[in-house]
Amino acid sequence: MKKFINRAEDVVKEELEGIALAFPEFVKVNFNPNFVYRADAPVQGKVAVISGGGSGHEPMHGGFVGMGMLDAACPGEVFTSPTPDQMAEAARRVHGGAGVLFIVKNYTGDVLNFEMAADLVRAEGIRVLNILIDDDVAVKDSLYTAGRRGVGTTVLAEKICGAAAERGYDLHKVADICRRVNLNGRSMGVALTPCIVPAAGKPNFTLGEDEMEVGIGIHGEPGRERTKMKTADEITEMLALSIIEDGAYRRTVRELDEQKGEWTEIELVSEPFRPGDRVIAFVNSMGGTPDIELPIIYRKLHEICEKKGLHIVRRLMGRYITSLEMQGISITLLRVDDELIDLWDAPVKTPALRWGA
Amino acid sequence: MKKFINRAEDVVKEELEGIALAFPEFVKVNFNPNFVYRADAPVQGKVAVISGGGSGHEPMHGGFVGMGMLDAACPGEVFTSPTPDQMAEAARRVHGGAGVLFIVKNYTGDVLNFEMAADLVRAEGIRVLNILIDDDVAVKDSLYTAGRRGVGTTVLAEKICGAAAERGYDLHKVADICRRVNLNGRSMGVALTPCIVPAAGKPNFTLGEDEMEVGIGIHGEPGRERTKMKTADEITEMLALSIIEDGAYRRTVRELDEQKGEWTEIELVSEPFRPGDRVIAFVNSMGGTPDIELPIIYRKLHEICEKKGLHIVRRLMGRYITSLEMQGISITLLRVDDELIDLWDAPVKTPALRWGA
Repeated sequence: MKKFINRAEDVVKEELEGIALAFPEFVKVNFNPNFVYRADAPVQGKVAVISGGGSGHEPMHGGFVGMGMLDAACPGEVFTSPTPDQMAEAARRVHGGAGVLFIVKNYTGDVLNFEMAADLVRAEGIRVLNILIDDDVAVKDSLYTAGRRGVGTTVLAEKICGAAAERGYDLHKVADICRRVNLNGRSMGVALTPCIVPAAGKPNFTLGEDEMEVGIGIHGEPGRERTKMKTADEITEMLALSIIEDGAYRRTVRELDEQKGEWTEIELVSEPFRPGDRVIAFVNSMGGTPDIELPIIYRKLHEICEKKGLHIVRRLMGRYITSLEMQGISITLLRVDDELIDLWDAPVKTPALRWGA
Repeated sequence: MKKFINRAEDVVKEELEGIALAFPEFVKVNFNPNFVYRADAPVQGKVAVISGGGSGHEPMHGGFVGMGMLDAACPGEVFTSPTPDQMAEAARRVHGGAGVLFIVKNYTGDVLNFEMAADLVRAEGIRVLNILIDDDVAVKDSLYTAGRRGVGTTVLAEKICGAAAERGYDLHKVADICRRVNLNGRSMGVALTPCIVPAAGKPNFTLGEDEMEVGIGIHGEPGRERTKMKTADEITEMLALSIIEDGAYRRTVRELDEQKGEWTEIELVSEPFRPGDRVIAFVNSMGGTPDIELPIIYRKLHEICEKKGLHIVRRLMGRYITSLEMQGISITLLRVDDELIDLWDAPVKTPALRWGA
């Protein structure tokens, strides 16, 4: 294992120390429990948007903390869920009196721990809602997950919900926006290489010299199939069509019913894409895939979307939700309406995503 | 070789097609000859800032085209100089009547071709000045280079000169700023892995399982030494001290004397860093090194700078000048004064670098 680290057990701590020193204009860092939070938190009267998950997916989530996006991010160890005390302490630190939204990727550990954290801080009188992201069309159930995994749509949801909160939407409205983004977003990824979790010291799976893993998860979870290497155009078509031709997807999720004060199962349906839909197209490097290859993917994706009658109205291309140094990419398409586009365009000032005034 | 490409010979063309589709709000692309240029070019009355070089270092330079940075970027094939006709045609397209600055990394092919391009467009009545970047302290001469190589300082020079041009500085003043940035910037890098140029299909060098190349060039050129792998702190110290303790560096460069209308050799000196200097600190991934490792480097760099009396006043951390998927990092320190800081802070809107209004 060759990495720019000191001791494997210090990777996350030292990463956070570096983030605190490198981005003082955007964020502060709390240690024990670990979380990254807005330098100007709490923002009074604004819904606080919090996410978190295992480390190793940088810049998600810590790189998305700042004006117009997250109020706090809770990093676990590499590929390991953060703990309820991190989430609860982050909520206490950044809530500005208007409630807290937890954006939760659908991995069993994350889901349980964010629910426990919500219960903890609700007992102290802070309003909290949890919204799940489960957008990966590759597989139904997976290692670490019942139902679909939460992947690329998470980045878009954090941007859009952050804008909604900044604009003064109340807690239920921000949660509604988050649910709407999740129901309209679909993703799928492919890996050409594994990655090495520092504490493990060896690749998290093996792939032949001419093989790729189609439908890979962001922790190296197996996908749909292992196939021979294909061209960029063929791979893009495989991912794009899996997303665009995905049928209606029904799932039961647990959300908090604030009236009753209890967790309730509700059924949610993602409707398939249809010709005429407007979409945000997101081409993401899993970490090790270089920038020169991403436009080659985008070029084909653009062509396929046009052929299918989907209008790409906004784009995001780069490294945003990664698996350490894994070579691979993922594609996300998010159906948007005027409101979501407007929230997407709103100013954002974070270490990893910046635009607008 | 596993890459998201179609045919190796189409990589740059298809990358440019993707860039044109993905970033229409920032840039347009010209094919045959290939260059990326500002969507709103030419900007009348503004000095046009142009750079270029081999592809494979993305986002440099095409990702830096836009308001407040480059007017055009000329990409060669991967790790291959662009040709004079690309540079000349780009200059014709974007010049707004106030002259053109070519920012040239010190590689023999780039230097010669940018000089030929300057002669070509000068013959047509367009004023052009060429400024060289040669900031790599690792080695004196190198494969492809007489004198020091041009590396990380190029990114900072493009940002700062772009801001100067945007602010209405005249051609000589923008060139002076560029020369000043170069004379005050120093860089050094290290590689943990090679990379694969698509047309070659195999790694550009080999490194043992426990080895690294210290002082690597951005095309995989050998550096100072090949050593056993070290910790992040040890590597950071090795690079930072090589930069901070570098003595006065004298070199002779060719610049155009506009009065005489001929290329003239002038001697330029980089003065060493001194306690009390203010610096911009730039921690750069060579491509394959993931975001989780960069703050670990920055953390130690910050400590070393403090110990040496250098005040880090601004920072840049991420992938900006890369070698395809190479795992490695480089550190750049740029001594700045009030004017350079102010130009650094000025708004920039490009695919890869965005901030401000």
